[in-house]
Amino acid sequence: VRCAGAHLIIDIYDGERLDEIEHIERTLRRCIDAAGATLLHIHLHAFQPNGVSGVAVLAESHISIHTWPEAGYAALDVFMCGEAAPEACVPILREAFAAKRVAVSELLRGQGV
Amino acid sequence: VRCAGAHLIIDIYDGERLDEIEHIERTLRRCIDAAGATLLHIHLHAFQPNGVSGVAVLAESHISIHTWPEAGYAALDVFMCGEAAPEACVPILREAFAAKRVAVSELLRGQGV
Repeated sequence: VRCAGAHLIIDIYDGERLDEIEHIERTLRRCIDAAGATLLHIHLHAFQPNGVSGVAVLAESHISIHTWPEAGYAALDVFMCGEAAPEACVPILREAFAAKRVAVSELLRGQGV
Repeated sequence: VRCAGAHLIIDIYDGERLDEIEHIERTLRRCIDAAGATLLHIHLHAFQPNGVSGVAVLAESHISIHTWPEAGYAALDVFMCGEAAPEACVPILREAFAAKRVAVSELLRGQGV
């Protein structure tokens, strides 16, 4: 299969700015650039009273983010196939959200298909 | 945190109709209905020469799909918080794509936050 892809499951703890939708969009775009990926479509949604969800469809797969600002928590996944470098997103996310802790798990998708 | 959510990582093997973008969109919508989730935004992209990527932003988080029709393979993730039932998507996906094998892993996100 043309995708031997890495799917990163990323949890941000004790983060800041998790209710700033424009900051979140800028951060996703920075991640995409840093990873060398190609953005096809991006959409973010602000919840009431707080929280943001966002997805970016990439030529290489996708990034998603869901934030719970009141808990300082965000759940992301970064799935990239081919030559992109999804791990390049991790330091950008850590800095952008001033996260005290970031947990990353890597799943390999489409292996041996 | 208001999300103690289940994040299902779903791999479809030896599936059919993985290049039919309208069928894929209908299937995602059926999954969302079956899970009792609320659709906020959906976007699908057809690649050349084949393959489809799609994301649905939900009030409860998201669904994504990426297909490699030539390999009969699709990589999905279904992340739903709250009262939704993400596992209800699995039999729908299996049937819609006539999958010979479906692998499902469950990640619990935002536990203890």
